[in-house]
Amino acid sequence: MLEKTTRMNYLYDFYQALLTPKQRSYMSLYYLDDYSLGEIAEQYEVSRQAVYDNIKRTEAMLEEYEKKLALFQKFQKRKQLINQLKEYILQKYGKDQQLFALINQLEELE
Amino acid sequence: MLEKTTRMNYLYDFYQALLTPKQRSYMSLYYLDDYSLGEIAEQYEVSRQAVYDNIKRTEAMLEEYEKKLALFQKFQKRKQLINQLKEYILQKYGKDQQLFALINQLEELE
Repeated sequence: MLEKTTRMNYLYDFYQALLTPKQRSYMSLYYLDDYSLGEIAEQYEVSRQAVYDNIKRTEAMLEEYEKKLALFQKFQKRKQLINQLKEYILQKYGKDQQLFALINQLEELE
Repeated sequence: MLEKTTRMNYLYDFYQALLTPKQRSYMSLYYLDDYSLGEIAEQYEVSRQAVYDNIKRTEAMLEEYEKKLALFQKFQKRKQLINQLKEYILQKYGKDQQLFALINQLEELE
C-alpha cells in the first residue's frame, strides 16, 4: 500500500496538469494530505462512493498516461544515471563544485 | 514555415502516444513524409478540407499538451545543460570515454 501511495504521488506529480480541477482536488487531499474518503466526501458534500469512484478512475487515467508517455519510468532511469555520473566523478576527479552545480541543474530540471 | 515544421515534428514526437491512430497517420504523412493535403485526402478518400481540419485540430492539441507538460521545453533545456557539461569536462579533464558514455546514455534517454 505504501508502495502504491508513493507511485501515485509520482504519477500525480507528472500528470496532474492533464486532470480536471475536481480530480486534482480529490487526489491531492487523498494522496498528499492523507485525508480519508469519508473526510473528502464530507468536505465536498458528496457520497463516499462518489469520491471513491472518482479517485479510482483518476488512478486508472494516471496509469494510462504513464503507459503512453513513461515520464515516471524515464525519470527513474535519469536519476539512476545521474547518480552513477556523480559517483564516477567524485571517485575519479573529486568534488568539482562547478561540475556538480551543472549536474544538479540537470537533476532539478524535473 | 520551416520553424513551425520543426516544432511540430518535435511535439509530434513527444505526444504522439496521446493521439488517435487517424491523427497520427495524417500528422506523420504531412509532417514527416511531406505529403500535401491533397495527396492525403486522395489516399484516405476524404475531402482536402477534412484533412486540413483534422491536422489543424491536432496541432492545437499538441500545443495544448506542451503548455501542460512542457516536454519539448524541458528537452531543450536538458540538451543545453548536457552540452555545457560535455564542454566543461572536455576542457578540464579531456576525453574520458567512460564518463562520456554515461553522459551519452543520459542524452539518449529521450
